[in-house]
Amino acid sequence: MSDIDRIRAEVCALHAELLRWGLVTWTSGNVSARVPGEELLVIKPSGVSYDDLTPETMIVTDLDGKVVAGDRSPSSDTAAHAYVYRAMPEVGGVVHTHSPYATAWAARGEAIPCAITAMGDEFGDDIPVGPFALIGDDSIGQGIVATLRGHRSPAVLMRQHGVFTIGGSARAAVKAAVMCEDVARTMHLARQLGPVERLPQPDIDRLHDRYQNVYGQPAVDENPQGVEA
Amino acid sequence: MSDIDRIRAEVCALHAELLRWGLVTWTSGNVSARVPGEELLVIKPSGVSYDDLTPETMIVTDLDGKVVAGDRSPSSDTAAHAYVYRAMPEVGGVVHTHSPYATAWAARGEAIPCAITAMGDEFGDDIPVGPFALIGDDSIGQGIVATLRGHRSPAVLMRQHGVFTIGGSARAAVKAAVMCEDVARTMHLARQLGPVERLPQPDIDRLHDRYQNVYGQPAVDENPQGVEA
Amino acid sequence: MSDIDRIRAEVCALHAELLRWGLVTWTSGNVSARVPGEELLVIKPSGVSYDDLTPETMIVTDLDGKVVAGDRSPSSDTAAHAYVYRAMPEVGGVVHTHSPYATAWAARGEAIPCAITAMGDEFGDDIPVGPFALIGDDSIGQGIVATLRGHRSPAVLMRQHGVFTIGGSARAAVKAAVMCEDVARTMHLARQLGPVERLPQPDIDRLHDRYQNVYGQPAVDENPQGVEA
Amino acid sequence: MSDIDRIRAEVCALHAELLRWGLVTWTSGNVSARVPGEELLVIKPSGVSYDDLTPETMIVTDLDGKVVAGDRSPSSDTAAHAYVYRAMPEVGGVVHTHSPYATAWAARGEAIPCAITAMGDEFGDDIPVGPFALIGDDSIGQGIVATLRGHRSPAVLMRQHGVFTIGGSARAAVKAAVMCEDVARTMHLARQLGPVERLPQPDIDRLHDRYQNVYGQPAVDENPQGVEA
Repeated sequence: MSDIDRIRAEVCALHAELLRWGLVTWTSGNVSARVPGEELLVIKPSGVSYDDLTPETMIVTDLDGKVVAGDRSPSSDTAAHAYVYRAMPEVGGVVHTHSPYATAWAARGEAIPCAITAMGDEFGDDIPVGPFALIGDDSIGQGIVATLRGHRSPAVLMRQHGVFTIGGSARAAVKAAVMCEDVARTMHLARQLGPVERLPQPDIDRLHDRYQNVYGQPAVDENPQGVEA
Repeated sequence: MSDIDRIRAEVCALHAELLRWGLVTWTSGNVSARVPGEELLVIKPSGVSYDDLTPETMIVTDLDGKVVAGDRSPSSDTAAHAYVYRAMPEVGGVVHTHSPYATAWAARGEAIPCAITAMGDEFGDDIPVGPFALIGDDSIGQGIVATLRGHRSPAVLMRQHGVFTIGGSARAAVKAAVMCEDVARTMHLARQLGPVERLPQPDIDRLHDRYQNVYGQPAVDENPQGVEA
Repeated sequence: MSDIDRIRAEVCALHAELLRWGLVTWTSGNVSARVPGEELLVIKPSGVSYDDLTPETMIVTDLDGKVVAGDRSPSSDTAAHAYVYRAMPEVGGVVHTHSPYATAWAARGEAIPCAITAMGDEFGDDIPVGPFALIGDDSIGQGIVATLRGHRSPAVLMRQHGVFTIGGSARAAVKAAVMCEDVARTMHLARQLGPVERLPQPDIDRLHDRYQNVYGQPAVDENPQGVEA
Repeated sequence: MSDIDRIRAEVCALHAELLRWGLVTWTSGNVSARVPGEELLVIKPSGVSYDDLTPETMIVTDLDGKVVAGDRSPSSDTAAHAYVYRAMPEVGGVVHTHSPYATAWAARGEAIPCAITAMGDEFGDDIPVGPFALIGDDSIGQGIVATLRGHRSPAVLMRQHGVFTIGGSARAAVKAAVMCEDVARTMHLARQLGPVERLPQPDIDRLHDRYQNVYGQPAVDENPQGVEA
C-alpha cells in the first residue's frame, strides 16, 4: 500500500471517531492529514454522509487546496486546513467540528478556563478563542494560526463558528477534538451551578510537562503527543 | 421499481435518520414526501414503532390526506403535511418532530437567534416561531405556511408543540430537522452561561448565499439545497 | 405457549425498551405485568443485569408479592407493584424508573406543568408529585394509588425517589415511562432559559380527548391507550 | 484458567462497562482488581484505546505499582490504585473516571447532597470531596484513603480532577462509578431549577442499612455489596 493509500484509509477511519464521540451532526465535521514529504494533504469530500465514506472517496489536494486526486469536491473547509499546513510545518493533522459544548463556548467568545487536571494534561492552558472569520478566503486559516502558534493548546474555539484542532498526526488532532469537547462539557456543567477556580499556573505547568513527556507507551509512534489512562 | 415504490422505500429509510440523530421518542415524529407529478404524498402510518416500519407499511394519501393505498391509518399529522404540499408547490418533503432542544425553544415561544455560522449557512436567519394551533383541522398547516412562505429558514418552531421542516426533497427536510436540533442545542448551551450576539446581517447573507449556491458536489441531485462539510 | 410464558417473554423484552430510551442505569428500573384472570404478576428478578434477563428468569408472584415461580428474589420494588394491582383492577402493567430528568423534578417535589401538546396528548394534565415514602411496607404503593386514582396522568413523580407509571398493559406503562422522561427533559430545557405557560385547560381537554379516543390504528389491541405519530 | 487469567479477563471486560455507561472518553478511565491472596493487582495499560484491550494486554503490578507481568506501561494512575490496596485491605477493586457530571461537582469542590433514595441506598451519605492532589507521588492515593476510610460512600470526588470508587470487587467498584455519575447527573439537573432538600438522616440510615443487608440475590457472590432493581 502506498503512503497516500495508507493515509486515505486512516483519514477515512478517523471520521468514524468524530461520529462515535458525538462531535458531528449530518456532514458537519472533517479530518485531514498531511502527506509526509509531499506538498499534499488528504481530506474528506464535501457533503458526503459519514456512512458513505471510503478510502477511495477521500480527496487529495495540494497545499493551496487544489484537487490533485479524487472525483468530488473537497470539504468546503479545505482552505483553512491547507493554510495551517503551509504555516505550521510541525502539524501533521487538522480537525474541524461544531461539537456542541465547545461551540457553545465559541458562540459566547469565551475561553475555557484551565480548571481541571485533564485540561492541564492535554491543553496546558485555557482553550483560547480565535477571531470571527468568514469562509471564502484565508481568514479562517490565519485566525487559527495566529491563535495556536506558540500556544500549548492544540485546540482553538473560532468565535461564533466552531473548533479547529491540530496535532503531529491526524489521530492526535482527533484526540484533541474529542478531549476539547469532553472538557468543554465538564466545565460547562461545573459553571452552571457555581464558580470554578482556574488551577494555579505552576500546577498546570507540572501537569502539562509530565503528560507530554513522561506518560504513555514508549514506542506508540502514531501518537506522538503522549497518551494517558 | 415504480416511482411510488421508490418513495415508499426512501420515506421508510429516512425515519431511521430521525431515530439515529435523537429527534424522536417512541413513535413521535414523521416524514413525508410528495409524489412528483401526482396529487399524492407518502407518509408514516400512525402509531407504528420505528422498528416495525417497512416500505410496504407506508401510507399513500391524496393532498387532502385521504388514504389512497395502505392498510393502516396515516400519521395523525397528515393534515398538516398535506396542507403544506397544497400551498407550497416547491416543497417535496415535510418532517415533524418534538426534538427536545428545539421544542424547548418552541415551548417558550422564542425564536433561535442566528448567532453561529452553521445557522447562517443552513437557515439564513433566526429560526422563527409559528402560532399555537390545535390538531384536527388546517390550523397547523396554515401556521407552518404563514411562517415559512418567503422565509429563508426551512424550519419553524410551532409554539408549545414542536418542529416542522420543509425541503425540496424528503431528505432535505430531514437534514433541516437534524440541523435545527443541532443548532437549537448549541444555542441553548451557549445562552445558559451568558449572552450571545446575533451575527451581523451582511455576514448572514454572505454565509447563506455561499452555502446555498456555491458548495456541495455539483451533481448531488437528491440534495438540491446544497451540502457542507 | 401458555399465557404466563407469553407474559414472561413480553416483560423480559420490555426491559430492553427502558435501556434503549435511556431510562435506567445498571439494574435500577423494572417492569411488571398482571396475569389476566389470575391473582398473579410477572416481574424482573432483583439485581440482575439487563443483559442477563431471559423470559425464564422472570419471577411470578401473587398479588401480595409472594414468589410463586422463579429461582431468584423478585425486584425489591415488588411490593409497590403488587399494591397497585390490588388497588386498581384496570391496571395491567406497572413500570418504575429513576430516569434522570423526571427524577430531577421529583427531587425538587415539583409537578411538570402541562405546557406542550405532547403532554396534553399523553398525560392530559400536569404530571403530579406523590408523597415521599420509604421502601419496606405498603407506603410507596399507597402513595402511587392515592396520586393516580382518578387522575388522567399514567405517571407519578414519587418525591425524592423516581417515577412510577401504570397502563392497561405493560407496554402502555412502558410507553408512559418513556414519554414521561421525554416531556420532563423538554420542560426542563424550556424552563432553564425562561418561563413557560401552561396550556389553557380547554385545549388540554381537547388534546387528551382526541388522543385517547380518536387516533391510532383501530385494532392495535396490545396498545389500548391509543398511539400517535 | 488461573486466578490471574480470570482477573485479567474480568478487568478487561469491565472497561467496556465504563464506555457503555458514558463514563469515559478516549482513554481517560481505568479499572483495577486485587489478586486475592497475593500482593498483586491487575490494571489497564496506559494510553491504549478501549477497543484494543484484551485480557492479555492487562498489566500485573505489585502493590507498589512495579510491573510484574505485561509488555506495556501500566495506567498512569497505578500509584493511586496501589496505595488504596495497601491502605485498605477490604478493597478488592478500584475505578477512576472523569465522568462529566461527577467531575463537574468535583471541579467546584462541592459534595453531592444525599437527597434522593438512590443515594441513600448506594452511598448512605453525601458523596464527599477529596483534596486537590497532583499526580506523581502518593498524594492522590492518600487523599482517597483519608476521605473514604470510615465513610459509607464508595465514591470520592477528587477536587478539580475526577472520581475514584472502591468496592469489595472490581465489579462493585464499577457499579459505584456508574451510580455515582447517575446520581451526580440527577442532582445536577434537580439543582438547576431550584433547591433540593437533603433526606432526613434516619431515612438515609434505613435506606442504606436495608440496601446493604437485605436486598439482592442471596448468593450473587461476585457482587458482595448487594444489588437492587
